[in-house]
Amino acid sequence: MVNPVDTRTLQWLSEQYYDLNGTHYDILEKPPSAIEFSRLVHMSRPAVIKGFDFPALRCWLDEYLIQKMGDQAISVAVTPNGRADAVTLGPQEKLYFVEPHTEQMTMHELLSKLDQSRTDALFSGSSDDYRETLYLQSQNGNLYSAPYFQSPNSDLSTANQACEFEALRSDVPSEVTWCSEAFGRSPDAVNIWIGDRNSVTSIHNDPYENIYTVVRGVKHFTLLPPTEGWCLEERTYPHAKYARDTSTSLLAIVPSSDSEPIRWSSIANPQLSGMLAPQAHPIRISLHAGETLYLPAGWWHHVCQGEEEVQEPDKDFLNAVPDGKTIAINWWYDMEGRGMGWVWYAFLRGGDVPDGNQADLNEN
Amino acid sequence: MVNPVDTRTLQWLSEQYYDLNGTHYDILEKPPSAIEFSRLVHMSRPAVIKGFDFPALRCWLDEYLIQKMGDQAISVAVTPNGRADAVTLGPQEKLYFVEPHTEQMTMHELLSKLDQSRTDALFSGSSDDYRETLYLQSQNGNLYSAPYFQSPNSDLSTANQACEFEALRSDVPSEVTWCSEAFGRSPDAVNIWIGDRNSVTSIHNDPYENIYTVVRGVKHFTLLPPTEGWCLEERTYPHAKYARDTSTSLLAIVPSSDSEPIRWSSIANPQLSGMLAPQAHPIRISLHAGETLYLPAGWWHHVCQGEEEVQEPDKDFLNAVPDGKTIAINWWYDMEGRGMGWVWYAFLRGGDVPDGNQADLNEN
Ligand SMILES: O=C(O)CCC(=O)C(=O)O
Ligand SMILES: O=C(O)CCC(=O)C(=O)O
Repeated sequence: MVNPVDTRTLQWLSEQYYDLNGTHYDILEKPPSAIEFSRLVHMSRPAVIKGFDFPALRCWLDEYLIQKMGDQAISVAVTPNGRADAVTLGPQEKLYFVEPHTEQMTMHELLSKLDQSRTDALFSGSSDDYRETLYLQSQNGNLYSAPYFQSPNSDLSTANQACEFEALRSDVPSEVTWCSEAFGRSPDAVNIWIGDRNSVTSIHNDPYENIYTVVRGVKHFTLLPPTEGWCLEERTYPHAKYARDTSTSLLAIVPSSDSEPIRWSSIANPQLSGMLAPQAHPIRISLHAGETLYLPAGWWHHVCQGEEEVQEPDKDFLNAVPDGKTIAINWWYDMEGRGMGWVWYAFLRGGDVPDGNQADLNEN
Repeated sequence: MVNPVDTRTLQWLSEQYYDLNGTHYDILEKPPSAIEFSRLVHMSRPAVIKGFDFPALRCWLDEYLIQKMGDQAISVAVTPNGRADAVTLGPQEKLYFVEPHTEQMTMHELLSKLDQSRTDALFSGSSDDYRETLYLQSQNGNLYSAPYFQSPNSDLSTANQACEFEALRSDVPSEVTWCSEAFGRSPDAVNIWIGDRNSVTSIHNDPYENIYTVVRGVKHFTLLPPTEGWCLEERTYPHAKYARDTSTSLLAIVPSSDSEPIRWSSIANPQLSGMLAPQAHPIRISLHAGETLYLPAGWWHHVCQGEEEVQEPDKDFLNAVPDGKTIAINWWYDMEGRGMGWVWYAFLRGGDVPDGNQADLNEN
């Protein structure tokens, strides 16, 4: 049976949802208890949480990161325009969903190149210069991933050896205690993000409960509730990837021959006013160093980052060093798939529900 | 804007929901912690909870109840057929939604009449005899209600004086600790139910999270998830009430002149197989003395009660005394109205969402 959702239904749902909830979000002055957090999760509204503290927030200066990481190669996304995983004009004036090119480098190289690109931008006469954008956004559980949680103590496991950021693990807890207790499980993945103002994450949603903490700099989130996805004009785009042309050594968009088309929003800049249908009610949140966002599963998010205008530097946190780089950590927890969660998620997207375990579930 | 929900959509949602969840429900061998319970609430699936213990479970024998309640008048629903708040054939062969007649009596009178009706039934030659059914089901927070929770310690408050069952309060906690902690609030109402096999509660749903404990006897629940409400053929019926005819002293259905029509299911006996559309997947749960049902907000329920066939009486509980009476207690907690809760509830019923507090909620 095909998902029969239609625009009138989506309009009604988003209107009712907005009438009831407005654009409110809670701001917590300190981390919630597990039970307080589970009430937030049940409500499924974003919240900003202050005071969730861990060592990275106080020691991840460039020198420290460089020294700790040494020669370890890390995988960095490279694009000509800062738009990794985004809809982009490619060969034959066609639009593609384009994945970034990935290059290996050391932490030292990444941070120097980010500095260099800032200096270039500040002193360059023209903004049209071809300048590649680097964004550490491998988001595959680059810090902790499922194999870690299955056997956290086996230091020699393949999974741990393969972890590019093992040297930084002691600065970041593998679990957020109040989340793991509320969800009754460990995270699915924990990721480091390092970039600068040139990187943008295009609007999308995930089937994950997301805890996102800014360590340095500032991240600007534009959020829409799951009900307003229909305002994002999702279309299907052929898949492509950036690859480095061996003769020019420039990045070129190369259509993939063996990938399924990707369904993605056609709205490139939902953070700009007037880009969204008037029925959409974006919530804009700028998250500063030391602040954590609870981003509920299914919520649409566009993320960009900026240099912080620090009026009164808070010596406690690393935004006292505004050098244009933004560093963040996020914990993804699987969303509750039982009950209505998956069903509403699929319904609002016009898609299918992933397979359940019906056979196991029938009758006690 | 009118709720545009259509049957195809409802069919799709209920099919996906069933494919994912089946008819499974959890059985807990002991009461959950607050955090475990909040995970159940988030999933919104029914669960049977064993071992939730309070004094009533061990002392509510007839003699005790009669002695404690003394001359206190209590409000009892009276119907000719055991169907209070149900669709019934009335004047001019029309169907009405009929509320019960209410009569005041003492606990002693109620319990004796229930005994008498059982003896009559056992020894009567015909099942067609006119026998009225008594059901203590005032469900207005007859044990504890909102005013109590606002000022629990003011024994002399009007609210407490008006409480018919104040004498029994010491046997029933006003709150279920693991629920109040999970929801972050006190119950909205706590009710006593006393009846026998002649009483039936017709299928309906409530915007309440419900914790329902059987103290004596057995209750048979037929449950449908919120997604399967469309199988219940809700229609609008004129409102009526039973009233005692002064000349015949029989109960007669009297249409109300000043009440709005009531939307109610047309399926009188969903507990019988074949009465529901094949797309409905009822969950049948028989709840025995000492067992508690978590009935999530929005779930449809039909409830009847029966004499327990006690093979091996459990001396711990009062089902060791099968006298045909069923006694239960329930705690109603307001459902979470923020987020999507109300919206989905209204959507699936084809109705409107209650007014929100939009003005208070916009922008931080
Ligand atoms: O920080 C970013 O650029 C994107 C973050 C994101 O999409 C996520 O955490 O799901
Ligand atoms: O016990 C009954 O007869 C009905 C219970 C009920 O409808 C409820 O608790 O909501």
